[in-house]
Amino acid sequence: MRFLIPLISSAVSSAHNRITSRFLNALPTVPPFLNCRPLSMAASEESLRKALAEKLSAVEAHGNAVRALKAAKASKPEIDAAIEALNNLKLEKSSIEKQLQAAVSGGDGDGALSREAFRQAAVNTLERRLFYIPSFKIYRGVAGLYDYGPPGCAVKSNVLAFWRQHFVLEENMLEVDCPCVTPEVVLKASGHVEKFTDLMVKDEKTGTCYRADHLLKDFCNDKLQKDLTISAEKAAELKHVLATLDDLSPEALGAKIEEYGITAPDTKNPLSDPYPFNLMFQTSIGPSGVSPGYMRPETAQGIFVNFKDLYYYNGNKLPFAAAQIGQAFRNEISPRQGLLRVREFTLAEIEHFVDPEDKSHPKYSEVAGLEFLMFPREEQMSGQSAKKICLGDAVSKGIVNNETLGYFIGRVYLFLTRLGIDKDRLRFRQHLANEMAHYAADCWDAEIESSYGWVECVGIADRSAYDLRAHSEKSGVPLVAAEKFSEPREVEKLVIAPVKKELGLAFKGNQKNVVEALEAMNEKEALEMKAALESKGEVEFYVCTLGKNVPIKKNMVSISKEKKKEHQRVFTPSVIEPSFGIGRIIYCLFEHSFYTRPSKAGDEQLNVFRFPPLVAPIKCTVFPLVQNQQYEDVAKVISKSLTAAGISHKIDITGTSIGKRYARTDELGVPFAITVDSTKDVTIRERDSKLQVRVSVEEAALVVKSVTDGLRTWEDVWEKFPHHASGSADD
Amino acid sequence: MRFLIPLISSAVSSAHNRITSRFLNALPTVPPFLNCRPLSMAASEESLRKALAEKLSAVEAHGNAVRALKAAKASKPEIDAAIEALNNLKLEKSSIEKQLQAAVSGGDGDGALSREAFRQAAVNTLERRLFYIPSFKIYRGVAGLYDYGPPGCAVKSNVLAFWRQHFVLEENMLEVDCPCVTPEVVLKASGHVEKFTDLMVKDEKTGTCYRADHLLKDFCNDKLQKDLTISAEKAAELKHVLATLDDLSPEALGAKIEEYGITAPDTKNPLSDPYPFNLMFQTSIGPSGVSPGYMRPETAQGIFVNFKDLYYYNGNKLPFAAAQIGQAFRNEISPRQGLLRVREFTLAEIEHFVDPEDKSHPKYSEVAGLEFLMFPREEQMSGQSAKKICLGDAVSKGIVNNETLGYFIGRVYLFLTRLGIDKDRLRFRQHLANEMAHYAADCWDAEIESSYGWVECVGIADRSAYDLRAHSEKSGVPLVAAEKFSEPREVEKLVIAPVKKELGLAFKGNQKNVVEALEAMNEKEALEMKAALESKGEVEFYVCTLGKNVPIKKNMVSISKEKKKEHQRVFTPSVIEPSFGIGRIIYCLFEHSFYTRPSKAGDEQLNVFRFPPLVAPIKCTVFPLVQNQQYEDVAKVISKSLTAAGISHKIDITGTSIGKRYARTDELGVPFAITVDSTKDVTIRERDSKLQVRVSVEEAALVVKSVTDGLRTWEDVWEKFPHHASGSADD
Repeated sequence: MRFLIPLISSAVSSAHNRITSRFLNALPTVPPFLNCRPLSMAASEESLRKALAEKLSAVEAHGNAVRALKAAKASKPEIDAAIEALNNLKLEKSSIEKQLQAAVSGGDGDGALSREAFRQAAVNTLERRLFYIPSFKIYRGVAGLYDYGPPGCAVKSNVLAFWRQHFVLEENMLEVDCPCVTPEVVLKASGHVEKFTDLMVKDEKTGTCYRADHLLKDFCNDKLQKDLTISAEKAAELKHVLATLDDLSPEALGAKIEEYGITAPDTKNPLSDPYPFNLMFQTSIGPSGVSPGYMRPETAQGIFVNFKDLYYYNGNKLPFAAAQIGQAFRNEISPRQGLLRVREFTLAEIEHFVDPEDKSHPKYSEVAGLEFLMFPREEQMSGQSAKKICLGDAVSKGIVNNETLGYFIGRVYLFLTRLGIDKDRLRFRQHLANEMAHYAADCWDAEIESSYGWVECVGIADRSAYDLRAHSEKSGVPLVAAEKFSEPREVEKLVIAPVKKELGLAFKGNQKNVVEALEAMNEKEALEMKAALESKGEVEFYVCTLGKNVPIKKNMVSISKEKKKEHQRVFTPSVIEPSFGIGRIIYCLFEHSFYTRPSKAGDEQLNVFRFPPLVAPIKCTVFPLVQNQQYEDVAKVISKSLTAAGISHKIDITGTSIGKRYARTDELGVPFAITVDSTKDVTIRERDSKLQVRVSVEEAALVVKSVTDGLRTWEDVWEKFPHHASGSADD
Repeated sequence: MRFLIPLISSAVSSAHNRITSRFLNALPTVPPFLNCRPLSMAASEESLRKALAEKLSAVEAHGNAVRALKAAKASKPEIDAAIEALNNLKLEKSSIEKQLQAAVSGGDGDGALSREAFRQAAVNTLERRLFYIPSFKIYRGVAGLYDYGPPGCAVKSNVLAFWRQHFVLEENMLEVDCPCVTPEVVLKASGHVEKFTDLMVKDEKTGTCYRADHLLKDFCNDKLQKDLTISAEKAAELKHVLATLDDLSPEALGAKIEEYGITAPDTKNPLSDPYPFNLMFQTSIGPSGVSPGYMRPETAQGIFVNFKDLYYYNGNKLPFAAAQIGQAFRNEISPRQGLLRVREFTLAEIEHFVDPEDKSHPKYSEVAGLEFLMFPREEQMSGQSAKKICLGDAVSKGIVNNETLGYFIGRVYLFLTRLGIDKDRLRFRQHLANEMAHYAADCWDAEIESSYGWVECVGIADRSAYDLRAHSEKSGVPLVAAEKFSEPREVEKLVIAPVKKELGLAFKGNQKNVVEALEAMNEKEALEMKAALESKGEVEFYVCTLGKNVPIKKNMVSISKEKKKEHQRVFTPSVIEPSFGIGRIIYCLFEHSFYTRPSKAGDEQLNVFRFPPLVAPIKCTVFPLVQNQQYEDVAKVISKSLTAAGISHKIDITGTSIGKRYARTDELGVPFAITVDSTKDVTIRERDSKLQVRVSVEEAALVVKSVTDGLRTWEDVWEKFPHHASGSADD
């Protein structure tokens, strides 16, 4: 019965940032004070601003002095000397400006620029080769919606297949598949209807909408990066605003916007006050118009509402994990940052249910020895950078809250690096106390560095019992687990027994609310009431569902502590939730895999994606060296044996030069090319090294298969087979 | 320019049924006159109704005669003889009633009942073992939304993986992945905004909504099946209504509802007139509220709008196919029939683009020899049933419009039967002329027989150039292909050259509309205008975008036929579209795979799903015969080798009896069980035959893998390995 008491509002009352940050909101950059830059850098920025301010006054003073000398018709040598001194000062000033520019743009002066250029090159290749396409392009598209074209779709399906193998099959997880259309009641229970919002401002004349925090953020960043004349104090203030952006109330945000005179970027019109906009796509289920629904903002709720059935399916045993891959939706106010901030995306989520009293994991030892970049709370607060830590140490020192959470951090690390994410640009960042929901035990984000900065791609949170409790309360269905005792145990239990007859006489139709409120008292409240009833005979009692106090008399409730034999312990399981933003992982993988190298003639830069075979959209291409029936027949034989081996491949029988054909497949990240230049032996070329070996026609498919399946490496192949002696056509 | 003329409304003006039937609407039963029952059955029903009517009058007349005899105090023998004759008549009457009951309920009197009982048994097992779960069950669910639980989700992912292999990889299709959220303009172009509707009626007092055609259909079926006293003429009328249900206008449907006195089923309140309800879930994209969007009702549009890029990706060559797997949505008025009629479902769609002048297919010969149940238009119209036809004959005789369409029909047949669909309960039904859109060249549905009747599961349509033209016109982007000629060809072409200056002077701001309308004239219209201008100097010309006639003078347009050299032929490709309702296929597969058999003791019926290994949710279970550390260790060794072989499996080390453990896995459709009863050899048991062979521990995983991969059959295994001699535990 206590499940009916609406605890939800208090439970999520301060959950604005938690709910949004849980859904991959707070990225892609963490506030500046959390950046990896060492403290000394920040200090040097401050001293540079001071030095620049001093230099500027010196230049001004000296300029005045020069003008005074001129006015006073001083001697030419005297004036010349003064001018030279002024010029030196100006040189010093611009040197400081340059240093400051470098300091504010992330450590290296050309860094931002080169990141931008790198991204442009990668994105051009991705769009030209249809890895992705802005959706509905012929209708001028819709911001925040993208299609995966053929190679992108193949990469995505490889990533998902590997996810399924690495998590679902490996751990015997219970995979489910729930609809996107979700009735309102479910998302009220989860807190999304109330709290899944961003603050928005409107152009007061045109009605164009903007995310309030984005405008303020852009203003601060712009000022910091482009206006080198601001004082060190002003710079510190702007940085403080950036650091606390996510915690600002609508009023505080509005006040800052007004204080800084921020206007609509496109029109310079004044802006409205900030107000919350719910980020769920709303719709209506059925024809009546009275059943509101939403497109799910995450897949997790579909698992929570099925907990009871899944627990039963698992033989009423804990721990177990359920998993789901599917679309989720987020009606962004004004999406930007390409594939990183979209309105529809694929999530892969795991809900691992455990006994809160035992968060050990049987396979923990398999990952405890891993060492990788971690960024614990304390290092962030003290301005240090992420550092290599052994996972086992982090768990044993209590930096990571428990073994199961540690286990999943390790498994996520293995998953991402096997996909091809660069381990030096991957870090696990712990949520700060103020980022985390009050109910969460611990939370770590896998962040991947891209040209946009550090991007949150996987969130791994110990959410304790919050979600199951919320749905128990809203639905009235207890979502609990039980531990059977081998021997019954004696426990002392608080028993609250409302006397329904008396309560009915006193409160008529409100009886039920009063009964529920009485039963929902915690031990302390109940014992206080007991004492008060015994001394005074009557107490005032606040019933939140009625919104008022009611008088409770001694005959209306009996409160006692009783000894009971219990045969089992009933509890709400904790949930540990690794949640993967698949599109973000894929975009970062694209960036980490992309590089350019000069063509053989040196006259152009060729694009390459160094995808591992696991994720490459096509594993192999087959080229007859020249157009020739015999070679084409051999190519077809090889193609058939590749199909039989289950290797996705493509034949290219165009007469294009072999170098061009290699370049075309390098751009798609195809790891191997088989070139047919005889009817007996063929060459296999590896994409990144461009090395080639000679293999018989019969063996070709099996060699490729053994490498793509990970049974041997290219190095093994290179050692075993004769090398193709003549310089290959493309290098 | 002609692309801007809004031809869309005329193009889909009669498309109501086409658009809905395209999206798997008209199922699961075809109108009664299309049923397989031979003509003689229908005739016997009519004669039985007549015989029953005669017998009823005879009984009444004879009853009166008996009463008259009694009143006249006739002799006892006389009265007794009359009563006996009356009783005989009554017996004859009930015999005819029984025959009629049997005739109207589908050929066998207990058929409907046993189908219902079969479905109940299958559905009970499916829900109990979590193959699927009504979504949001703890909140009392939402009609038409279902989750796939763990085994259902595994079956679904196996079906989709096989679909990808059988279609996408085998044919080198270009797979794409587009968002569900779709802006209005796209669905206006496709005709969905205007025409994707069902007719709805409302309970005039409570506002509850019903599908108008369902109410009328239920009324007619009920009357036909339960009221045996209606005349043969009335029965024929009701059958005609059922047969023409899909073609009824809102007015005609409303008139029938009134004529038959149909009221709201739940309340018996009067109903509103029927009116169209759009079946798309509507939402709003972005925060402004001015960008309406819908959840896509099919995945196809995402492919059409990308045609230009995909054609380029394919080297500007035809034919090629694009494919997409994804969620689609349909806001049903009142969903029923479980998994067959849902509000969100997975579609897998192929759009195969071909030159309309060449619809041959290079791999057609691979399927031309297949023979299976086909139900051509003519057989349906003449009341015959589906019959086995050789696909090659159907194509060569022109029953199937072209080779490519035939090729896909054959491939769909192979796909469905390999999944485990019973080939005797699968038929390909051709659309009747009145079911098909006017632009479609031909259309066949793969229908699977289930307990609900024949269910449309795959639609295979030659949609000609309709979709690409619709988007070309709406977007202004030409979605065309070109065939380059090896030699330039001379062609005579109509040239319409509006004189913009004169038109500008005459029509000012409307000039553009007039120019476009002139350019959009077809050859006949243009030549008529040319003649009229030459004879009269001026004509009235209707401009649809202005909604009025304007006067066109001779100096405003030049119309001529010119000879031109052309280097290429530019045309809009035809599209052949196989569209798969994955959820429906899976549900039918569940029914076709389900059977029960008595337990060993004969005291209960055990449930079995005879899934082929390809789709089975788990391929193998591993059981230690008794709880014993040695056996458990062997089980773990086997489990490791199964994992290495990529075989999904489960260990069951509970102490439950082996018979119960077999029954549990049979119910999940697990094809093989490995029972560990020694440390050297183990038994492998096949699910349906319950036969067991002895295999060494080392070989066990490989034997299972070879059968699940289809490299050998169970029969091969049975021949090769020693049989398990002792009667197995479960039979």
